[in-house]
Amino acid sequence: ARTLKGFRDVLPAEALPKRRMMETLAHTFESYGFAPIETPHLEYTEVLINETEGEIGKQLFRFEDQGGRDVCMRYDLTVPFARFVVQHKNELGIPFKRYAFGNVFRGERPQFGRYREFTQCDFDMVGSRSMSADAEVVQLLVKALYALDIHEFTVRLNNRELMDGVCEHLDVVDRVPAVLRALDKLDKVGVAEVKKELQGEEAALSSEQASYILEFVQLSNKETGLELLETLKGQAIQSTSYQQGLENLEACYAILRAVGDVAERVKIDLTVARGFGYYTGIVYEVQLDQCPQVGTVASGGRYDNLTESYSSELLPGVGASVGLDRLLAGLTELGLLPDTSAPAPVLIGHMSKEESSAMHALANELRERGIGVELYPEPSKLKKQFQYADKKGHTHVLLQGSIERERGVYLLKNMASGKQTEIPDFEALCDVLTTS
Amino acid sequence: ARTLKGFRDVLPAEALPKRRMMETLAHTFESYGFAPIETPHLEYTEVLINETEGEIGKQLFRFEDQGGRDVCMRYDLTVPFARFVVQHKNELGIPFKRYAFGNVFRGERPQFGRYREFTQCDFDMVGSRSMSADAEVVQLLVKALYALDIHEFTVRLNNRELMDGVCEHLDVVDRVPAVLRALDKLDKVGVAEVKKELQGEEAALSSEQASYILEFVQLSNKETGLELLETLKGQAIQSTSYQQGLENLEACYAILRAVGDVAERVKIDLTVARGFGYYTGIVYEVQLDQCPQVGTVASGGRYDNLTESYSSELLPGVGASVGLDRLLAGLTELGLLPDTSAPAPVLIGHMSKEESSAMHALANELRERGIGVELYPEPSKLKKQFQYADKKGHTHVLLQGSIERERGVYLLKNMASGKQTEIPDFEALCDVLTTS
Repeated sequence: ARTLKGFRDVLPAEALPKRRMMETLAHTFESYGFAPIETPHLEYTEVLINETEGEIGKQLFRFEDQGGRDVCMRYDLTVPFARFVVQHKNELGIPFKRYAFGNVFRGERPQFGRYREFTQCDFDMVGSRSMSADAEVVQLLVKALYALDIHEFTVRLNNRELMDGVCEHLDVVDRVPAVLRALDKLDKVGVAEVKKELQGEEAALSSEQASYILEFVQLSNKETGLELLETLKGQAIQSTSYQQGLENLEACYAILRAVGDVAERVKIDLTVARGFGYYTGIVYEVQLDQCPQVGTVASGGRYDNLTESYSSELLPGVGASVGLDRLLAGLTELGLLPDTSAPAPVLIGHMSKEESSAMHALANELRERGIGVELYPEPSKLKKQFQYADKKGHTHVLLQGSIERERGVYLLKNMASGKQTEIPDFEALCDVLTTS
Repeated sequence: ARTLKGFRDVLPAEALPKRRMMETLAHTFESYGFAPIETPHLEYTEVLINETEGEIGKQLFRFEDQGGRDVCMRYDLTVPFARFVVQHKNELGIPFKRYAFGNVFRGERPQFGRYREFTQCDFDMVGSRSMSADAEVVQLLVKALYALDIHEFTVRLNNRELMDGVCEHLDVVDRVPAVLRALDKLDKVGVAEVKKELQGEEAALSSEQASYILEFVQLSNKETGLELLETLKGQAIQSTSYQQGLENLEACYAILRAVGDVAERVKIDLTVARGFGYYTGIVYEVQLDQCPQVGTVASGGRYDNLTESYSSELLPGVGASVGLDRLLAGLTELGLLPDTSAPAPVLIGHMSKEESSAMHALANELRERGIGVELYPEPSKLKKQFQYADKKGHTHVLLQGSIERERGVYLLKNMASGKQTEIPDFEALCDVLTTS
């Protein structure tokens, strides 16, 4: 009895808060009109990878199925979504908003806290080039974290078009991808190392060009969003990409400021690059302020060419992913997760075989009042039943033997205080259990 | 752009009610103290199948992973659960109650409505031989269907020990599995065919023995549960299995009658056999009264030897599965599913680019009042935006141009009636949208 190398089981203490997080996220996505979809765990390999991409290829769970087809377990939810949109576009209608939860599979070298199967949560809107779409996805990301009762985090927002413009201005537009890859490491390795990389083999900038770029991205260190936008307008950068990028960033930020408590969590940060090649405009990533060591817990951006592998019609899109496992790790570290694996807070002790029906009836009456109740399944020694409640994390153990039943009273033990009290009647019992 | 043979995407019109059903089921399971768990989609092949079992082997998605391991995608949630319990027993504590939703994979010949990947929903309690456990699982099955607003169904309940006893009495105890396999077809092929099969090669009963068995199981045709239990007590069957089985069935039924509205959906039916070999006691299956053609929508029973492949310690268990896909098919056929793929009922029309912020702010205010609101992402022609709402199934389209905004009023179109009205203020708007 063992799990496969790099795979793991999720036990109730983690699966329970995870399920509740997913429910909260689903409700938040749906309140914005994003609908759930499901795509298969298994796809034709040619749908998932372009044979020329070597990097991801080695990590795939790829095999030949019973019918001799070359198939592959999905390694993310984005690529199958691009396939989905092209395939069902007419049926779905455009614009289309979706979300999805799903496990994905990567044969990476297992490391601490990283597994070969993990859960992703994506939401996307395809079919619009409007900045309203970008602002909505950022907004929804903020609201989703609020709904999870997470309030101390920062969304770092940027627009890739600005760096396109800067590179145009420096006449090194062919080196944008290398520049972004170098900038993506700024947090980890610092300015001096990134400058070296900008002058290295790939980006091959001059020392002046590298300095210009680093000074540009560091503009965002000191100023508020609105001040920074003014500063950016004052830059002598000759480039239509730059002008367009600035206008878009401004439009997106204006909408974010209009929706109550959202903008206060958003910081325009020109150092944000996002590693993935497919982003083409606004990009963002989210860190927990109190827990930076867990890394980016959510990220996203605009991708205008995602469907290019499947269709000549390019559908523009914006989307984000929430890293559920990292978020759970962060919340655990911050002590924000309840320490229980008991989904129903109350345990009813099983007194005797003869009283089974009475105890089932009592449990049923309490559940009908909205109180979660677990019944111990057999008349074991009470000590054993209390140990069970203690281990699982029940808040209360409820006992009603034949004597108490005749008198219409209940014995209730509060597991936190250890205090046992007699409750005079059913209404009083419901009161205690619903208010504690 | 295509899905793999036998696989399919789930679009919002189906994924939305499915997600909501899963949420309702999860809440119901948790209210009884059943906790969620997750096991991997991929396992060592030796964990999932016993090499001597040929039947399921051909249907497996089995391959060698990057590390040369013989691996297999799971084909159900029960076998991985047996592995899980043995592996984590000490950490979990016994008794242990779990539920799980998950997709499973079988390379069957694709047929109408049957796919190679489908969603299962299981719940189980391990570690108790008490009839309280059996009664709880049946009870939870009934309550889960009630929670889904399904009320016209029948749980057909039986105890395999009774047929063990009858076969003991007839001195053909070695032929119990063949007898059960034959009886399992009673619904489909009728009494005459089953009698033939009972006298056939496998069960090899005499005509008298076959008649005795058929008369016995047909006792349940005419009587109520309590009457039937009395009749069964009056049978001249010399067998301890029979006596024990009858006592257990009676204990289980007594608990079911004690919990309000449960027993009215339960019918003791001696013809229920359940195909699977691993059941050892109480068994049950559920059909929708109005929609028998979708077949069994849920089933379960007691299995006392499930962990025997992994451990010398045999853990007794009871569990059931809900067939989500069949249930969805049944509800669709009965017209009980809402015909919409709009998770948020209200669509706000996008009036102009300049007013984006105002419209985002309005959407935000409505959402803060608990109203699901989708904002069309760009200022397309209103006709196009209304067509979008019509296609998705929004209940209302809300418009507020600059003139209405100045006046503080709203234009609201009810998509069902086609009527557009002016709403005088925000409170009135919330009232209309929350009461309709």
